[in-house]
Amino acid sequence: MIVVLKKNITAPEKAQLVEKLKDVGCEFQVFGDGEPIIRIYSKQPLMSRDFFLSQPGVQDVLRITPPYELARRNSAQQESIIQVGDIAIEPKHFVMIAGPCAVESEEQIHGIAQTLSRMGVRFLRGGAFKPRTSPYAFQGLEEEGLRLIRKAADQFQMKVVTEAVSSAHIPLIVEYADVLQIGTRNMQNFQLLKSAGKQKKPVLLKRGMNATIDEFLLAAEYVLQAGNSQVILCERGIRTFEKATRNTLDISAVPLIKELSHLPIFVDPSHASGKRSLILPLSRAALAAGADGLLIEVHHQAEFAKSDGPQSINFQAFDALLGSLKELAPLLGKTIL
Amino acid sequence: MIVVLKKNITAPEKAQLVEKLKDVGCEFQVFGDGEPIIRIYSKQPLMSRDFFLSQPGVQDVLRITPPYELARRNSAQQESIIQVGDIAIEPKHFVMIAGPCAVESEEQIHGIAQTLSRMGVRFLRGGAFKPRTSPYAFQGLEEEGLRLIRKAADQFQMKVVTEAVSSAHIPLIVEYADVLQIGTRNMQNFQLLKSAGKQKKPVLLKRGMNATIDEFLLAAEYVLQAGNSQVILCERGIRTFEKATRNTLDISAVPLIKELSHLPIFVDPSHASGKRSLILPLSRAALAAGADGLLIEVHHQAEFAKSDGPQSINFQAFDALLGSLKELAPLLGKTIL
Amino acid sequence: MIVVLKKNITAPEKAQLVEKLKDVGCEFQVFGDGEPIIRIYSKQPLMSRDFFLSQPGVQDVLRITPPYELARRNSAQQESIIQVGDIAIEPKHFVMIAGPCAVESEEQIHGIAQTLSRMGVRFLRGGAFKPRTSPYAFQGLEEEGLRLIRKAADQFQMKVVTEAVSSAHIPLIVEYADVLQIGTRNMQNFQLLKSAGKQKKPVLLKRGMNATIDEFLLAAEYVLQAGNSQVILCERGIRTFEKATRNTLDISAVPLIKELSHLPIFVDPSHASGKRSLILPLSRAALAAGADGLLIEVHHQAEFAKSDGPQSINFQAFDALLGSLKELAPLLGKTIL
Amino acid sequence: MIVVLKKNITAPEKAQLVEKLKDVGCEFQVFGDGEPIIRIYSKQPLMSRDFFLSQPGVQDVLRITPPYELARRNSAQQESIIQVGDIAIEPKHFVMIAGPCAVESEEQIHGIAQTLSRMGVRFLRGGAFKPRTSPYAFQGLEEEGLRLIRKAADQFQMKVVTEAVSSAHIPLIVEYADVLQIGTRNMQNFQLLKSAGKQKKPVLLKRGMNATIDEFLLAAEYVLQAGNSQVILCERGIRTFEKATRNTLDISAVPLIKELSHLPIFVDPSHASGKRSLILPLSRAALAAGADGLLIEVHHQAEFAKSDGPQSINFQAFDALLGSLKELAPLLGKTIL
Repeated sequence: MIVVLKKNITAPEKAQLVEKLKDVGCEFQVFGDGEPIIRIYSKQPLMSRDFFLSQPGVQDVLRITPPYELARRNSAQQESIIQVGDIAIEPKHFVMIAGPCAVESEEQIHGIAQTLSRMGVRFLRGGAFKPRTSPYAFQGLEEEGLRLIRKAADQFQMKVVTEAVSSAHIPLIVEYADVLQIGTRNMQNFQLLKSAGKQKKPVLLKRGMNATIDEFLLAAEYVLQAGNSQVILCERGIRTFEKATRNTLDISAVPLIKELSHLPIFVDPSHASGKRSLILPLSRAALAAGADGLLIEVHHQAEFAKSDGPQSINFQAFDALLGSLKELAPLLGKTIL
Repeated sequence: MIVVLKKNITAPEKAQLVEKLKDVGCEFQVFGDGEPIIRIYSKQPLMSRDFFLSQPGVQDVLRITPPYELARRNSAQQESIIQVGDIAIEPKHFVMIAGPCAVESEEQIHGIAQTLSRMGVRFLRGGAFKPRTSPYAFQGLEEEGLRLIRKAADQFQMKVVTEAVSSAHIPLIVEYADVLQIGTRNMQNFQLLKSAGKQKKPVLLKRGMNATIDEFLLAAEYVLQAGNSQVILCERGIRTFEKATRNTLDISAVPLIKELSHLPIFVDPSHASGKRSLILPLSRAALAAGADGLLIEVHHQAEFAKSDGPQSINFQAFDALLGSLKELAPLLGKTIL
Repeated sequence: MIVVLKKNITAPEKAQLVEKLKDVGCEFQVFGDGEPIIRIYSKQPLMSRDFFLSQPGVQDVLRITPPYELARRNSAQQESIIQVGDIAIEPKHFVMIAGPCAVESEEQIHGIAQTLSRMGVRFLRGGAFKPRTSPYAFQGLEEEGLRLIRKAADQFQMKVVTEAVSSAHIPLIVEYADVLQIGTRNMQNFQLLKSAGKQKKPVLLKRGMNATIDEFLLAAEYVLQAGNSQVILCERGIRTFEKATRNTLDISAVPLIKELSHLPIFVDPSHASGKRSLILPLSRAALAAGADGLLIEVHHQAEFAKSDGPQSINFQAFDALLGSLKELAPLLGKTIL
Repeated sequence: MIVVLKKNITAPEKAQLVEKLKDVGCEFQVFGDGEPIIRIYSKQPLMSRDFFLSQPGVQDVLRITPPYELARRNSAQQESIIQVGDIAIEPKHFVMIAGPCAVESEEQIHGIAQTLSRMGVRFLRGGAFKPRTSPYAFQGLEEEGLRLIRKAADQFQMKVVTEAVSSAHIPLIVEYADVLQIGTRNMQNFQLLKSAGKQKKPVLLKRGMNATIDEFLLAAEYVLQAGNSQVILCERGIRTFEKATRNTLDISAVPLIKELSHLPIFVDPSHASGKRSLILPLSRAALAAGADGLLIEVHHQAEFAKSDGPQSINFQAFDALLGSLKELAPLLGKTIL
């Protein structure tokens, strides 16, 4: 960390600052008398910029190493491989996670699982606990939903990806799920992150719709630091002034996260755009930008979906999407799973 | 709600849509053959725009009444009064809630409570469970922190405002707090909102840093709908492209929420700006814009604060602030409490 | 347009509104007594929402056709083909526009033109008038720059794309350029748009970094309406809270504009990301999302560039980029030009 | 400026960097062998961060003095006083600039000037050249509009504030106006800024709706650097995700600009909010936050205004606003002019 002093810092202020740095056990070097720089050597993740910024005479603070230690990629490091049963999420694969926004009934989830598995999809998504903006909206089937999606997935040898919205639900969800999803509104629900870090199942962590990439990786750091190294990141659109799409897919986040971190990064074009007609081009773009997989809302009758209907695609559209991705993938060094 | 049909909707699509509206028990009126409008009369909070948007042939949907029923203000309605012990949060008052970001020690919180109470402040804030962006940052004293702030407040006849970050903590926090705070990162933690709605203490709900005003009032609706009518709203800055301040204080939200809702609205200039030097002018602006109170971070030694140091003000600055507000308040029909 | 009336509109207000609509020559229909809807049939581009919103008793106004008449795509319409000499910008092509941020010297632009033309690039970009945030930054070689880029382009049979920053410069630029570029900061410089519409060269219009897609298409409408039908749109990133990249590339804008408009849409990954290492993945993503071409900053010695160095790539990186795009293009129905 | 080197910078890269710094005539100091810091002493406004960021081996660059030299406030510096005829825009005044969005007719501007001048308003605003999002919207009366507003102002001893949208119009506008306004869409129209800097009339510069405060002050720097020291800044709302108001008034910009610059700062609550009902509370907030004046849209018949009707207030509302501000101003050390 580099601490920049104010031009008009007084000698007593500077002396007091140096004293305080010693008090807190900080290793540092002051550069000359006239130089407005102090270099801090202490292990940075443990020091906050705020501590320095609140000292009298300090003008600015520049981090020179990232604030996340476990999530970051060291120069020579390989990308992490997340193993879900017999399926590996790794650089040479492009993994499809598909299914309805919410589990609505046995018939619904069974039908969707059957069709998707026939198309070769190995991961079935579907929410049982739904975070909804309005208290009057459908809130999910809760435990019954978990039971139904597990049953459907088992019948077709699929893996279950489903969302936990509270740390209290984690033991229950872990019983049914193969991958625990943490949604955009919970990316900074730190209790939930800690709990997800203490259980053993892989965690799919969606980016907060207002989170910077640094904050996103710090959220992953919570899970990693609590003991769970199996984190899958997912870009799902950020909130901007543009309302023609539900969110703005930050496609640059994909290659940037590849540089900064060793964790796999997925894309969710359904929530990013909120529009059926954009799912195909955005899915292709995600593959082309280097993503490791997709999270897609598929519904057998999108116009009857209890939630997220406008952004769900039907089987036919999903099949076309798969076909297109299968053509492109080899040129990008990927196999569609 | 007004449903706008696509110009090129086919007759079968229109017939199918009408059928579906009947099926779901919707009251509606179709306007003429050529008119691309269907008017929906059903109780709107129970219908989502998404349902209509996902139907084939539908182009757009316009809500004509707000999606929140309990939080909204009817034309003739008075503003709500929230009673906290002997103190009323109501239009003729301007209520100061002050204290440190986090409870750090008995000495710290006792000293702050003593000084603030001498200045006439009746509400003491201080976090025991801290939501922190980094897992390496100070996470709060937890139950010990609750005990200490309660003790300090009792000694000086103050009310305690403290944050709950998980529904699991609510029973514990309710034991110690007079007002339960829900922070910006939890504004859409719906489990927490529901739990806060089921207990009896007033709830101070901070606006999500990326929440629209509609979403903010829908979050309040979760608490109200669960049975707790004592909700205090708090504008604390939204996230924008501007990084010269920590967030962008949306001062317009104050008078706008006064129009839309009967709930009181506070302002938190500390988190909004992240800069000590802006607290005074922003506090005056909040009062001038019609807010019902302030939430301010005050620390006896801001440069030693374990969190939020750069935006905390010391006693002297807080005293000057109070003095200025007391001059202005009568001209705005308010008494400082 | 659909005008929604306030619930509590008075009978005189409603009568007055109806009178005013007649006065301004508006065709409309009032739906029943209790219905809060008036349908406006007048040619919408000529009526503004503001007119209706400022009438007493009006709550909201919903446009049901887009506000741009010439830029929009009618259902059966083909995409526009923009002919630049012997080269057609059209759906089956993916056109590369490459070159330095600014023309710096004869040697520089000649060398870059030579290498790019050998690689098959037909469009040479380079600024002579540079819009710079700071008055102390390099402002461009002005007319001398235009002369140099024209000379270099002619020598290698390339087309010149260069920016106009003021309507006063248009006659001069038109003399030297094949395509007139309008930059992001001038997307709503309406004098410039009108002037660009009155000359005959194709116009490459970059999206304002804070412009909605509607505003972008309305800016194109200014050029079209002034008589120039040859408009090429270019998405170049929008400004959001995320600062890890210079801007946020709105990749969804590409397929969305394809739906809404018949105009070609390019992508500028250099300005969108501001980072050399992201140019390759974002270029692939643009192609995969359906864009019609790219605008890329290439410099023979990026570390010596007088502007935009961090986002410029060198010849080797550009060559690799071209190679990758040439592999992918056929699968997307495109030929690289 | 502080240049931070990459951890893995090679010795040749470092040597090459040092060589290049010498070549460009930069004064600098390298700190030790292991230290990843180079301190640059050259006059910073003349060096761009980009130059350093594009060098191999450079990780980051931190400015330690602002990039604007003339607009910034030195520690002991007084605030600038802008004299417009007999009226001084200075810290002890709070100056009202009022009038319609656009000059529409002689009768309109005469009537408005008459009433406003009776209320004590000394500055009359009104646009003759209107920057409009749609080419189909009213574009202003152009020179005739200038003539009419000048005539009305002269009759009532008022000053004219009107907008220039192109440097080509400046000679014309300067003939009629007392203060030249540069609008939000032109804040980075650098040709216009330079031209405004070369004439003698004070310039009212509105913040770009997507401009950071640094960019805003750099835009002012363009005018100052071209020779005109009379710049009045105006915060008018920035574009954010929140659409309940037309823009988001960045009230914090007011005290922050007071810290950073010696230039006066006004607020335009009309464009910031886009809603009549918010003008009063936001005007009070602007005064309370330390602004030097207001720009307000007033129309004798807001519902007939040819532009910006929804945000214009009528005489009665403006009178009430003035009354309220006159009560508050003395407590804030200001006199309303």
